[in-house]
Amino acid sequence: MKLHGGDVYGVAEAIGIPVERCMDFSANINPLGIPDGVKKAMADAIADSVHYPDPDCRKLVQALAEGLKVQPEWILCGNGGADIIYRIVQAARPHKALLPAPTFLEYGEALESVGAELVHYLTDGQMEIREDILDWISDDLDILFLCTPNNPTGLLIPTKLLEQILERALRTGTRVVLDECFMDFVVEERRCSMMERVKVYPNLVIVKSFTKLYGIPGIRLGYGISSDEAFLKRMKRAGQTWPVNGIALAAGIAALKKEQEQFVRDTVEYVRREREWLSGQLRELGYTVYEGQADYLFFRAPGQPDLYERLLNRGIIIRRCRNYVGLTAEHYRIAVRRQEENRALIERLRELAAAGTASSGRILTCERNERTWRQK
Amino acid sequence: MKLHGGDVYGVAEAIGIPVERCMDFSANINPLGIPDGVKKAMADAIADSVHYPDPDCRKLVQALAEGLKVQPEWILCGNGGADIIYRIVQAARPHKALLPAPTFLEYGEALESVGAELVHYLTDGQMEIREDILDWISDDLDILFLCTPNNPTGLLIPTKLLEQILERALRTGTRVVLDECFMDFVVEERRCSMMERVKVYPNLVIVKSFTKLYGIPGIRLGYGISSDEAFLKRMKRAGQTWPVNGIALAAGIAALKKEQEQFVRDTVEYVRREREWLSGQLRELGYTVYEGQADYLFFRAPGQPDLYERLLNRGIIIRRCRNYVGLTAEHYRIAVRRQEENRALIERLRELAAAGTASSGRILTCERNERTWRQK
Repeated sequence: MKLHGGDVYGVAEAIGIPVERCMDFSANINPLGIPDGVKKAMADAIADSVHYPDPDCRKLVQALAEGLKVQPEWILCGNGGADIIYRIVQAARPHKALLPAPTFLEYGEALESVGAELVHYLTDGQMEIREDILDWISDDLDILFLCTPNNPTGLLIPTKLLEQILERALRTGTRVVLDECFMDFVVEERRCSMMERVKVYPNLVIVKSFTKLYGIPGIRLGYGISSDEAFLKRMKRAGQTWPVNGIALAAGIAALKKEQEQFVRDTVEYVRREREWLSGQLRELGYTVYEGQADYLFFRAPGQPDLYERLLNRGIIIRRCRNYVGLTAEHYRIAVRRQEENRALIERLRELAAAGTASSGRILTCERNERTWRQK
Repeated sequence: MKLHGGDVYGVAEAIGIPVERCMDFSANINPLGIPDGVKKAMADAIADSVHYPDPDCRKLVQALAEGLKVQPEWILCGNGGADIIYRIVQAARPHKALLPAPTFLEYGEALESVGAELVHYLTDGQMEIREDILDWISDDLDILFLCTPNNPTGLLIPTKLLEQILERALRTGTRVVLDECFMDFVVEERRCSMMERVKVYPNLVIVKSFTKLYGIPGIRLGYGISSDEAFLKRMKRAGQTWPVNGIALAAGIAALKKEQEQFVRDTVEYVRREREWLSGQLRELGYTVYEGQADYLFFRAPGQPDLYERLLNRGIIIRRCRNYVGLTAEHYRIAVRRQEENRALIERLRELAAAGTASSGRILTCERNERTWRQK
């Protein structure tokens, strides 16, 4: 069983509560929801579903190229960011891959699906990647996955370090996959993103998604950017001809329109404010909260390995992080949601704290997804 | 460049005609369009796009299992039938594969993406697969793709021959992929489908799609059926966690409701009637028309290698078949469309016949997608 966040349908069924009554803090989706212009474009696209979608996503690629200031030939759209990740490994066919721990599970799952050997770089006590990662980048390393801000920690990788990693990887012939899916929520996005370095480093592939910022994980839309056009062509051939559905295409094109710029600014500001409030509240509760910069927060709740189960009884779903390499049953991630929901979560956590660590009520458990890992 | 049918956006742009004014006979989609109940379900699902879709497509799988009378564990849903085809080759990792010629191009493209050696069984002058295909199924053959009714010919493979193929393939350890995506249009569907044999032959994988019957190629929804549950699990792991978007899920569930049964019956009858009319007309024009049983017709127009280009000038798109192994520039496929469109096509063909074979007006061409093949 895969243990991703966001399986609200499965959890709702398991606990016998309608989906509408669940508060899902396990999926990191824009709390402001889908912008109206995007919703309208989706509705308008329904009648066009009678045609195959454009296999090359031409209009969307053009809009992305203009916004990102990169060549259209450097962009490949896919069925969500996760599709891009699988196409990368299918095109690269790596023998040996390096992943930081902890990070997004889909990288390891994709790499295992093509039989790659996984090596984990364990982050330090602050969950940060340090310069010593450079020692791990050697001639026999085919691919390296990084995520900034990282999932689940929300921590940014300093661009200076990323630059050093890319330089070294260029010399060792290592492809660097940089997942910037949550960069849209970073206040200083422009300063923290490596998008402008795509041109300089052909070994860099950036993964992006529309899912989080525009609140549309349900329709699946992501893309990869690289100046290695031959590699992008291999990625295209690694999967089917029509990966992006027509409604996702219409949503993406609408999302990039000028009229959505205010929505994006409002989102970044709303998330920043709520994240800071939540962070302070969680610290008051005695949790160790990391300095996340995305639309979620990562924390450790000492002595509380059953926080997930205890919240679930009230229809509140958070993300247990015990199935990440390098993390424990005391690590959790919560999405930053709307003010009233964030307040409800904190209130419930206060109640639990007042009731002590003894569990009460029905406890629900899930199998643990065991993973092997090794330390250098 | 891939040369599939249905790229109405690309063609419309190339000839400078709006998509709405093109008559697309190159995509084999239900001429009655999307049923209202399915359209409504899609519209209702837009707001739910704020959640990740159910990664296991539980409700849809349950509805399919009931309708097909197979176990839910034998069904895997994907991002269109084409996604299922790629997952099959990624899970099977075949060294040697057998394909009939001609057949749907996506099989060969998927097989090439995993480095399989392709062997083509050339059908006879009637474009039919005969018993001698059994001689090609040997211990070193890992996988065999078949399509019934075949794309692009529309011809059915007799179930007696399919049974022999499956029997032999079971002994040689060969997986048989049977694409029944167009079986929905066959008048005697129940007699011609191998769905009931899935239980008996664990080496059989049937590929199906919602695309054609419900007129929804734009939203991408297909599925695979096999009683080899371990293989289905490998297929699931071969791609990302959320392959099916939420709007496609909602459409699929609505399509299987009892209220759509009349729509399906009406479709089969409408297509049969129009197909027979078109077939007669094409024969009168001197073309060799094959006995297709699906929602398209395949024919040869002797001495007319430029029929595609000449129709394109009037915004009529048909499917050139010269990029199929075993076919020539005189082979074409047309979808069965609505009565008035079918009449418009025939009228235009009559005009061209009256004008002689000399080309007139602007001729548009596309690169030929060269493919290598070998004969046993």
